[in-house]
Amino acid sequence: MAEPLTLQDIRGAEAPGDEPSFEGWTCPLPLRDSPTIVMGHGGGGAMSGELVEHVFLPSFADASLAQLGDSAVLELHGGRMAFSTDSFVVRPLFFPGGCIGDLAVNGTVNDLAMSGAQALFLSAAFILEEGTDVTRVGAVAQRMGAAATQAGVRIVTGDTKVVESGHGDGVYINTAGIGVVPEGVDIRPDRAEPGDVVIISGHIGVHGIAIMSVREGLEFGTEVLSDSQPLGGLVAAMLAVTRDLHVLRDPTRGGVATSLNEIARSSGVGISLDERSLPVPEVVANACAFLGLDPLQVANEGKLLAFVPREQADEVLAAMRAHPSGSDAAIIGECVEDHPGMVSARTGFGAARVVDLPIGEQLPRIC
Amino acid sequence: MAEPLTLQDIRGAEAPGDEPSFEGWTCPLPLRDSPTIVMGHGGGGAMSGELVEHVFLPSFADASLAQLGDSAVLELHGGRMAFSTDSFVVRPLFFPGGCIGDLAVNGTVNDLAMSGAQALFLSAAFILEEGTDVTRVGAVAQRMGAAATQAGVRIVTGDTKVVESGHGDGVYINTAGIGVVPEGVDIRPDRAEPGDVVIISGHIGVHGIAIMSVREGLEFGTEVLSDSQPLGGLVAAMLAVTRDLHVLRDPTRGGVATSLNEIARSSGVGISLDERSLPVPEVVANACAFLGLDPLQVANEGKLLAFVPREQADEVLAAMRAHPSGSDAAIIGECVEDHPGMVSARTGFGAARVVDLPIGEQLPRIC
Repeated sequence: MAEPLTLQDIRGAEAPGDEPSFEGWTCPLPLRDSPTIVMGHGGGGAMSGELVEHVFLPSFADASLAQLGDSAVLELHGGRMAFSTDSFVVRPLFFPGGCIGDLAVNGTVNDLAMSGAQALFLSAAFILEEGTDVTRVGAVAQRMGAAATQAGVRIVTGDTKVVESGHGDGVYINTAGIGVVPEGVDIRPDRAEPGDVVIISGHIGVHGIAIMSVREGLEFGTEVLSDSQPLGGLVAAMLAVTRDLHVLRDPTRGGVATSLNEIARSSGVGISLDERSLPVPEVVANACAFLGLDPLQVANEGKLLAFVPREQADEVLAAMRAHPSGSDAAIIGECVEDHPGMVSARTGFGAARVVDLPIGEQLPRIC
Repeated sequence: MAEPLTLQDIRGAEAPGDEPSFEGWTCPLPLRDSPTIVMGHGGGGAMSGELVEHVFLPSFADASLAQLGDSAVLELHGGRMAFSTDSFVVRPLFFPGGCIGDLAVNGTVNDLAMSGAQALFLSAAFILEEGTDVTRVGAVAQRMGAAATQAGVRIVTGDTKVVESGHGDGVYINTAGIGVVPEGVDIRPDRAEPGDVVIISGHIGVHGIAIMSVREGLEFGTEVLSDSQPLGGLVAAMLAVTRDLHVLRDPTRGGVATSLNEIARSSGVGISLDERSLPVPEVVANACAFLGLDPLQVANEGKLLAFVPREQADEVLAAMRAHPSGSDAAIIGECVEDHPGMVSARTGFGAARVVDLPIGEQLPRIC
């Protein structure tokens, strides 16, 4: 017989288990003195980058992961596939122009598209909070299903966990996705070259301002709808012009500024923007002026940045403008040999400024 | 110019966005009058099944999803792959014998193995709580990396989100995984046949009791260590005997009872267990007796159930016992033509009882 059972009080839920130290850990992350996680670590900017560089990359030690693309491109059965994941913790769950459900589908579909891949399969994993209305969960699921149909992707596997009331926010969703990379396509964050033309597929800053308008109780005169949409069709139209797209990126958290800085560093090129050419809708510009934000740092959920060889740029731009998801596409800058790893912008007055990536994020939890 | 900006108070964070109804929704889930999510919906038992059946399956309408296997088996580039996802919300993050990090790797590796697939690639997505020690996150990541190395799988893509203090529990992790299904293997929850022998790969109920021992402040005389481990190697050893394994399942949430009931229903067979043959360690049996639990309903994280044609059963069992992850493997029952869709057990006194799946779960958040 085993020893008779005894009850022992252990204080709190986090009783000491088998907790190891983090070996090799020597100092807090450079950007913060505090050795704890702060909201900025989830903002997609410089602090997020630090966490990945100092904590996750050393622990996982993988060459594909270290490329830090929107998705990993892998060999399977003699062909290439793209694989990507994203968790969604947006507040509120429903916002003008979308909800967490379509965001979760489009976000991963778009991460795959940024490798040139057409999404085929998605997983859907839910962390639900006790006490959430089942009808709300159902509405999210139904919108996810509709978004998957629109994007031409199948939701083939899933999972549901429930956490106690107060430990979640109604619904968190993770999606992971698999897509096929067409032959001859080699789109990577480190392929930008001096001379490449930088194209944005449409208006910037719309998703972030749409979320802010409902969450912070602001009204901007005109209702701003999220730009959440799948971009696989737009990318296919671009690849029909040329397979030699160098870089694609969807500028979500941290906005266009973060994406461009990451590409400038990965590729070792300078990026020079013409600020007058940025397609910033008036309502976004006004909201940003009012709130002290830079539209370049505000999140988008249905836009892409493309780095295209100069010879193909006009034809690619025309193909984008002919597609419903790219009708407002514009050339916003070019890659240069000057200031490698940095992004600069010529202002309306002819001066130049450095476009840095945000440290944390002005508006947490926009996706 | 747009209208001048105005500030408007909207009450609470959940300002009315673009919230739709859940179309086609007519009634609360049959097992509950309350129209809200309860902990039992995440327990892996009957209530989890209801949520999937009434909310997710109709919304996503996918044939692979509807099979409700541990992973989806899909065609890509002319070959077959398995794809699976799981989120992990275990409390506490570190427990005797493991932590949320190795659980997140082994859980998805094992879901893939239940299709006969060897895991190749994992995604890792973190939802971190503001205020969590970075060293804790690092320790989790380091253990994940070590578990991935042990399982022979690469972590190739990832994501990090941060939620405000009080909205999470330190660390939630989602992993999704991709594996290759060998030719000639066709393992599905609906392939059990009368005459099949039911084998368990080792001691049952260990993970659930290990979590309970630290969380509920119980001591059971002997320390109970979680059985979290990767099962790809064990499955490969079994497939080396015969490719004609009918069903594999890792009995996690809801335990052996839930897995067997799901298989009985999917396959339309009866399952008859011999209770005396169940490998329940004494410390688990004592803890269950003390707590009023059925060891068949307690979670495992490093065990599998196999349904094997009678002619191959002895040889498969021998191969399992020769593998370090299957040294305590045992035949626990068989499939019968009687009582299709139900599981029965012959007790030590020769009587028979129905083994039902739990409604919710006795111990939430064990994975």
